[in-house]
Amino acid sequence: MNKTFQQKLDAIITMNNSLVCVGLDSDFKKLPLHLLKKRHPLFTFNKAIIDLTYDLVCAYKPNTAFYEAYGTEGISELKMTCDYLKKSHESIPIIIDAKRADIGSTNEGYARFIFDYLGADALTIHPYLGYESVVPFLRRKDKGISILCKTSNPGAGEYQNICDKDTNEPLYLTVARHVAKSWNTNDNCMLVVGATYPEELANIRTVVGDMTLLVPGIGAQGGNVKEVMHAGLNSKKRGLIINSSRAIIFASSDVDFASQARNKTEQLKEEINNLR
Amino acid sequence: MNKTFQQKLDAIITMNNSLVCVGLDSDFKKLPLHLLKKRHPLFTFNKAIIDLTYDLVCAYKPNTAFYEAYGTEGISELKMTCDYLKKSHESIPIIIDAKRADIGSTNEGYARFIFDYLGADALTIHPYLGYESVVPFLRRKDKGISILCKTSNPGAGEYQNICDKDTNEPLYLTVARHVAKSWNTNDNCMLVVGATYPEELANIRTVVGDMTLLVPGIGAQGGNVKEVMHAGLNSKKRGLIINSSRAIIFASSDVDFASQARNKTEQLKEEINNLR
Repeated sequence: MNKTFQQKLDAIITMNNSLVCVGLDSDFKKLPLHLLKKRHPLFTFNKAIIDLTYDLVCAYKPNTAFYEAYGTEGISELKMTCDYLKKSHESIPIIIDAKRADIGSTNEGYARFIFDYLGADALTIHPYLGYESVVPFLRRKDKGISILCKTSNPGAGEYQNICDKDTNEPLYLTVARHVAKSWNTNDNCMLVVGATYPEELANIRTVVGDMTLLVPGIGAQGGNVKEVMHAGLNSKKRGLIINSSRAIIFASSDVDFASQARNKTEQLKEEINNLR
Repeated sequence: MNKTFQQKLDAIITMNNSLVCVGLDSDFKKLPLHLLKKRHPLFTFNKAIIDLTYDLVCAYKPNTAFYEAYGTEGISELKMTCDYLKKSHESIPIIIDAKRADIGSTNEGYARFIFDYLGADALTIHPYLGYESVVPFLRRKDKGISILCKTSNPGAGEYQNICDKDTNEPLYLTVARHVAKSWNTNDNCMLVVGATYPEELANIRTVVGDMTLLVPGIGAQGGNVKEVMHAGLNSKKRGLIINSSRAIIFASSDVDFASQARNKTEQLKEEINNLR
């Protein structure tokens, strides 16, 4: 039987001794100039990053928006990236940051795209339509389903901090509680929690036990690694997938972009491990 | 200057005397058997539906999930569908039911995909990340941005009905109020409200004035047209885009699918107009 997402994640965290996820937010407009004339610039860029970081990470996280922006060519290069990872680095989980969610019957289509077509191990989804709508994702027992809880953006609180008059609990915490208590029957749920909100991260950790949290927002968005580690580690000194995208993949815009990405990944890995 | 989405919508509602949107949820598994061997089955199906319904509708709404499920080929046929509509029926707005939303810089990629690559007139988005995140959509003044408010699915209330302890207002109504009061500075916002919740639709109408509401959920999902019309019409006897997908496009699974789709569209148009 194939490993579940969580088993695959646990194994690679041990093997690479890393909680670092590299976000493959490969914005064409920011690629090094010498790659722009390549037949497959996004894939060429990703492959170079992967080849110099695969021993330092616990996951890769491409965000679909940067690929869809270029239509079928972009989606094709996203698939090439996933195919390459599965062929050459099968032990590293692929998290597709897709932020999807529709009604139930429609989500079957997204599940096919992410899990069957791209062959990814996990995806991110919105909670707004509720549990009943996202069952087509949740019933994929071997996959990881990461539900947006407290997002990293400055305006995240507009709805996420609204307090329920019955429970006196902010919405993001209600999402965390529902996911931990009733969405997670297949033990395949995670939550997305922004590094920019360490206090909320600590609140979420108290509600979800040892559940894995996917944490974007360090680096370019300003989240602090020390605060994240203090607030977010679980009882096994794990439970965090700490993502950095721009600060790693665009560390240099020159021919040395991949080796600079390696340097940044290694620095982040060590900064994190010194705090575990 | 190009027409805005709302101007284009107003013109076609007048020209076709219709509030009907046909949802191009063209699930490959449900296509008539004789189409499956075509080079472009999804596009061939859509074109046949469009050719027999274009004079009866105010919009078409393809849902990306049904196309992404087939990867680059599916996206290619979605683009062919949009290209065909723009070339042959330029007056009919295309609403991409994408249900996207990420942090701000990432949403630029989705805006490029929907508005520039596909050339659509409008899209649907999730509200969960708040206003600040979706500005890249909202600043497209000529496009329509339809924000999920009260969705049509049975479990929609899990979060959407949570009551704010400060305002005593359910979340869906807070979304409606925020969108009407502060998101809509470019007069390009709409809300998605399920036909399956007519009481909530009436509540939303009282909060948003004459704003256009995109209403899925009649037909296969069980929403009632009479209740929708009673609860949702605005002061101009408009303000509703009433979507039907499966009940129209899969009315027949035989060679007569397009003429049966026309019959169903005409019936719905007349049922609606008799209640305006």
